[in-house]
Order: sequence, then C-alpha cells, then structure tokens
Amino acid sequence: MFHFDRRIEFQNKDNDILTVGELLVDMISDDYNDDHESDSYRKFFGGSPSNIAMNVKKLGVNSLVASAVGEDGLGTFLINHLKSANIDTQCVQRVDYSTSMVLVNKSKGTPIPTFYREADYHLAYTPEIENAIAKSKVVHFSCWPISRTPVRETVEKVMAVARKNNLLVGFDPNYHPMIWQKGENGVEYVKKIISKVDIVKPSEDDAERIFGKDSHQNQMQKFLDLGAKLVIMTLGKDGALVSNGQETLQFDSLATEIVDTTGAGDAFWSGFYTALIKGKMIRDALELGFAVSAFKLQHTGAVVDLPKLEDLQGQYHL
Amino acid sequence: MFHFDRRIEFQNKDNDILTVGELLVDMISDDYNDDHESDSYRKFFGGSPSNIAMNVKKLGVNSLVASAVGEDGLGTFLINHLKSANIDTQCVQRVDYSTSMVLVNKSKGTPIPTFYREADYHLAYTPEIENAIAKSKVVHFSCWPISRTPVRETVEKVMAVARKNNLLVGFDPNYHPMIWQKGENGVEYVKKIISKVDIVKPSEDDAERIFGKDSHQNQMQKFLDLGAKLVIMTLGKDGALVSNGQETLQFDSLATEIVDTTGAGDAFWSGFYTALIKGKMIRDALELGFAVSAFKLQHTGAVVDLPKLEDLQGQYHL
Repeated sequence: MFHFDRRIEFQNKDNDILTVGELLVDMISDDYNDDHESDSYRKFFGGSPSNIAMNVKKLGVNSLVASAVGEDGLGTFLINHLKSANIDTQCVQRVDYSTSMVLVNKSKGTPIPTFYREADYHLAYTPEIENAIAKSKVVHFSCWPISRTPVRETVEKVMAVARKNNLLVGFDPNYHPMIWQKGENGVEYVKKIISKVDIVKPSEDDAERIFGKDSHQNQMQKFLDLGAKLVIMTLGKDGALVSNGQETLQFDSLATEIVDTTGAGDAFWSGFYTALIKGKMIRDALELGFAVSAFKLQHTGAVVDLPKLEDLQGQYHL
Repeated sequence: MFHFDRRIEFQNKDNDILTVGELLVDMISDDYNDDHESDSYRKFFGGSPSNIAMNVKKLGVNSLVASAVGEDGLGTFLINHLKSANIDTQCVQRVDYSTSMVLVNKSKGTPIPTFYREADYHLAYTPEIENAIAKSKVVHFSCWPISRTPVRETVEKVMAVARKNNLLVGFDPNYHPMIWQKGENGVEYVKKIISKVDIVKPSEDDAERIFGKDSHQNQMQKFLDLGAKLVIMTLGKDGALVSNGQETLQFDSLATEIVDTTGAGDAFWSGFYTALIKGKMIRDALELGFAVSAFKLQHTGAVVDLPKLEDLQGQYHL
C-alpha cells in the first residue's frame, strides 16, 4: 500500500534511477508540412527513458541508462550527449545494428512517426546491467522495449532482479499497436507486465487501447486489479487522478501555457521520481511531478533546461 | 557473344527498362562533419535502380521501377517523385514497414552510410511485376535486393521470367558485406547470380571484394568464367576495360571536371542502356554510357538534370 502521506524508504545506494529501453535519435522535420514535402530535418537526442535520465540529472539526482545503440555516428552522438550531462554510459551497449531512429514530420494535426528500430531492441542482459540494478533505487521502463524480442527478455530479467533487490519499479503503459512486433497481441503481454510493477502512469488513451472505453474510475481499478500499487491516470488539461487502491486523489493541471507537449509525460515521471528520492511524501511528489510537467509544457523539445527541483518547488509554491 | 560492332536486337515492347530493387530516402547531412555533430539533414530521392529509372527517362526512353515503400510520408514522397517524372508506379508496392532510408554524414574522407532497411526488402513477386517483365526489353538490379530475404526470392523469380521473355539482364555486382544479412557468405551468392546475367559492371573494389586482389584482366576473366557475357570494369579516373570474352576494349575517362561522384556508376548504366535501346552498336553505347557518367560527375546529386541522349552525344562529339 502506498499511503499518500508517507515517504517511500529507499536503501542507501550509489545510483538513484536506472531507466531501461530506448536511446535513439528523433529526426524531426523543420517545417510543418502534411504533404511530406518538407526536405530538411534536424536530429535530436531522444527515447523516453533516456529523456527521463537526462531530466532527473538536471533536477538533482543521479541516473543510468541501459540501452543499445549502433557502432555508428548517431550512436556516438547519443553517447556523447549523455556524457556531456555527466551521465555514466557503462550500461549503453554498442551493437552491430544501426542506431534506432524515429522520424517525425511535423503536422498541424497529430504527427505520425515513422519508426526505424534496429540497435535498440538488441539490448542484452549483462553484468554491467546487473550491477546497475543492484546499486539503484528505482528502475523505469515503458512499452517500447517490451514490444520486441530479444530486448523484452532483458527487461524481464531486469524486473526479476529489481524485485530481488527491492527497487521501486515504474512502468509507462504507453501501449500502441504501431510499435508492437507483428503477429502478437501486445495488450495481453502489457497486462502481464502490469502485474509485476509498482507504479503505472496511463493516459486516458493508453487505458482505452489496453482495456477499451470505460469510466476513469473503472480504468484505474483495472490497473489495480492487475496488480499495480499506484495508478496515475493523466487526463491532459483536466489534470490527473491517482489511486493507491484505497483512495483517489484528484490533481488539477498546473500548466499555465502550452508551447509543446512533447515529453510532458516523461517530465512528470522525472519530477515524481526525483521528489520521492529526495524524501517527499507521495502526495507532494505527485504534485512536484505535475509541476515539472507544467514547466516542460512551456518550453519546446522533449528535454528542456529544467531547474533544480527545489527551485521549481518555490516557483510553483509547493 | 556480344560483338562490339553489333546492335542488340530488342523485340518491340511497351516499356524499355525495368529496374528492380531499392526505392529509398537518402538522408544526407548538410555539413561536412566527421564528429557526427551535424544536426541538420536533407532528404533526397534515392536507391540505385530508382536513380537509373529516373535517368533513362530523362535521356529519352521509358522505365518502370519494382520496389516496396512504406505506408508513410516518405513512401508518398518517393512515389510522387516518380510520378512527377512521368514514371508509372504500378510496380511500386506499399507495405506495412517503414520506407527504407540511408543516412549519410558527409565526410572529407569516405562517408560511412548508416542503413535503415525496412520496406525495401519486403518486395513481393506480383502479377504487376510479371506483366512489367513481359513488356520490357531490359531488366536491371544490383546487390542490394539480393542481400536479404524475402526480396531475394522476388529477384530470382524476376530473373527466371526475364530469361523466358528474352530480356537483356544487367547486374551491378556492387557487393559489400555491410549490406548483407548477417551470418551468410554473400560472395558465394553473388557468384551464383553472376552466372545468370548478361552484363556486369564491377568497379576494381567490387572485384576485389568478390575475388580478392588480382590483375584487371584476371578479374574480368573470372566474371566471364562465371557466365557473364559482357564485363565492364570501371577504373575510376583511369576509365574502364570492357571484355566480351574475345576482345578487350579500353576506354579513357571522359570526365573533365569532378564535382560529385555520387551516382556516377548509375549514370553510366543509364546512358549505356538508353543507347542500346536506341539501336547504337555496343561499342558506341559504352562510349555514350561513359559520356553520361562524365556529365553527371560535373553536377551535385545522385540524379541530375540530364539532357536527351542525342544532345549529350553532340556535346561529347560521339
């Protein structure tokens, strides 16, 4: 049971957060163009768990990323980017596949990404990763790495070892059939994973893709029934609902200005984890997560120049 | 036997040249940068057989491309590009994989491309392709599509049906282990393919990758021994040697100015095929191929604004 007015007690460890999954390049068109005639693109550091690792470092705790990139220029670019943020890259593997890429043509509607998955799904379970789990407090992953084998087996081992080492396990159930390997029912697998994690943060759309249409309360109950201990259901401009199985809290959005929604969910995770590690009560950590998300919404890009958590706390009067 | 002073007699057909293989996006960095720090890229229409189809159309004969692209924006871009050149896209398939891409970071040395192969290797053998073979005079392909399955099976069927229909079969033995599927000896397969085609155009490097180091004459003999009927061995600035198994011709390079070497080999094929179809003797068609290549070398890009073959002929006094 996660009491909202209690802290999560972590053992004293060398590292705070270990994120597992994709480290990749976002290749984004310079122009808004729905006819795909935009010719110029710009490359960005990307991948949800990698963005979280960058964010929490800026907010003031330590992080490691377990991911696989290619033996190519884009892989070098990504590793250098992590290093320049003083993130240790001991768990970033270089494999004989091209560095994964997501190509996005900016659109006035919902941009449809094109996925080039190569290196990322060849992440192997190694002694370096085992060591990283042992010395971390939190492990985080999303649907991306579990959507394909062989990296899925790596995530399963990470979860098993994380449990043995009493890590807090956060999972983003951002299920989408588009990323799933062909010929497999991803929904059933995602449900199985939910039963093995502590915290999930579905959006309304995620919940609908997994369970079909239903009321917010019913959707949250389904995640709880599967075994999640804390369900954070985000409702866009309507804020969020959070249930620990006994009580449901309602949070208003703290966003005052929305410039770019990219990475807002990862910004929440980043603020929430950082606050938990810094000893905040769960209720306050949630509030701080939403504050970081609101800050991010005011700035363009998936990873923005976040202040220290304490500075943000003052800014949002929390 | 291909007598240098004879024409190749083609049956009267609706289409001239059918190219089979990759239709893809070349994503090329704007800046020369060996540290992979270049952030801006530009997308180009690409893929060697597709470039040849574009070239021959400009030179004055008809072409079709058999290739597979994704159901995505880049696929639409490529198809629109072919259509804008008045090339029929009946043999361009749309498949449930991302449109293939080659990313190139410009370099003062040899740029190392990063391959994102998805849609292209899922080209299926269809009634449209069978129909296109039946109505074409020449079929052309390179090592790219035979380097992976399942498209390899499609190329094998194309070759078998092309033979039955008496098409001229041209093959670019541009073998490189980098594009080959892992765990397979590509060289042995390429040798098997050479035995089934009429014309090959290896560079010195291609020959060395396939047979190891040897003299030009010996290398050409190896291609002939395998079964190729005409071997065009290109020697960069030293021109080319061409053997029909009885006689070897030496061609000087016609290049006066080298601005960009990208696509120079495809420009040769384009001029050579166009000239053969227009009824030139093989010796003259070779000369015209080298003239088109020399023209291309003066311009930047893989597909440049070629004049009609007849205009080029005057320009190079051929």
